[in-house]
Amino acid sequence: MKSKMLNQAPERTFALIFEKGDAVVPLLEAFAREQGLDASRFSAIGAFERADLGYFVWEKKDYERIPVDEQVEVLSLNGDIALDGEEPKVHAHAVLGRRDGSTVGGHLLQATVRPTLEVLLIESPGYLRKTCNRETGLALIDVDA
Amino acid sequence: MKSKMLNQAPERTFALIFEKGDAVVPLLEAFAREQGLDASRFSAIGAFERADLGYFVWEKKDYERIPVDEQVEVLSLNGDIALDGEEPKVHAHAVLGRRDGSTVGGHLLQATVRPTLEVLLIESPGYLRKTCNRETGLALIDVDA
Amino acid sequence: MKSKMLNQAPERTFALIFEKGDAVVPLLEAFAREQGLDASRFSAIGAFERADLGYFVWEKKDYERIPVDEQVEVLSLNGDIALDGEEPKVHAHAVLGRRDGSTVGGHLLQATVRPTLEVLLIESPGYLRKTCNRETGLALIDVDA
Repeated sequence: MKSKMLNQAPERTFALIFEKGDAVVPLLEAFAREQGLDASRFSAIGAFERADLGYFVWEKKDYERIPVDEQVEVLSLNGDIALDGEEPKVHAHAVLGRRDGSTVGGHLLQATVRPTLEVLLIESPGYLRKTCNRETGLALIDVDA
Repeated sequence: MKSKMLNQAPERTFALIFEKGDAVVPLLEAFAREQGLDASRFSAIGAFERADLGYFVWEKKDYERIPVDEQVEVLSLNGDIALDGEEPKVHAHAVLGRRDGSTVGGHLLQATVRPTLEVLLIESPGYLRKTCNRETGLALIDVDA
Repeated sequence: MKSKMLNQAPERTFALIFEKGDAVVPLLEAFAREQGLDASRFSAIGAFERADLGYFVWEKKDYERIPVDEQVEVLSLNGDIALDGEEPKVHAHAVLGRRDGSTVGGHLLQATVRPTLEVLLIESPGYLRKTCNRETGLALIDVDA
């Protein structure tokens, strides 16, 4: 385990309110680009019209897609935005709730909001960079980068 | 997606420790009222003796109740408190864990704590207001309000 | 419900990046000890090779073990670190996601990371102490301590 202090000064907190039809991942990355965020974390609740989740299959070193083709509550959506080269990249995991209260979850690949998603995003003055991890082929946060 | 910066200055963080028998939603709203919190977010873990969760049925534009009549772990409970008129309103989503590890989740309607619930609540100097969304009839956060 | 203000000044935020094979609970407690953290909260996403979760059985006043013997996504992992005597103690709850998107959750007893776990840990200048709760035998946060 490695660590990096991101912050000793006040942080900026943003409320991002997504509306019906909004695509979550590209809008979050566009916001990070526009605001010049080098490292941030977020947490959200709301609801999706549909979503694609992912599960990383260790043996294949690749994500398998879990389609969620129904209106679901976003029970938890936690993630961070770090720089992969110069580009902000969202890494988020979601737990979604169905009509009967059962849940489905995974790595967030894409999702469409309906009717709202309330994201609280906190910028850290430090920055986080991703580098390609050799064993998995994934871009993972590297605090030494 | 719309955004609003809530904070550039230090925020106040409160630990709220709920005890056996405490009703979560009214106590959170009373705390926000007493402290004059205009916008805050929180995250909690603990356990409930029972809870009522909700699922918003898009076609009916209404919540359907999901009763949870058993002792459950509160695996995640994330939410915010915003002003609806002059009144603080809690919006929170929960994932609850049963004895066999299976989960049930939804919009938090009400819950009774047993034995403890540890809430970390962060006030933001900015404020968040809800206005009635015409399509859904829901009071949603409106960053332009 | 009792409350305690933890913070009116800037907080320190740390990114802790766990690597393949890391044991989560002892490394978090060691980090808190080394940094002299008296109260902190954290949130994490990533993946585990395996984990042991727990469910607190009210009638037995004890945790029952829920073994998770497969590679799982860490969909949410929320917790806090408080002092039990002089020792930092992690209290965390997890929701884990399986290959088919189904979830399993509980109190985090132990877990082994694979390939990464990204923890964002926020120190609060205040402190939180645990005292033994007579009814349950559990060490619970006591804001009056």
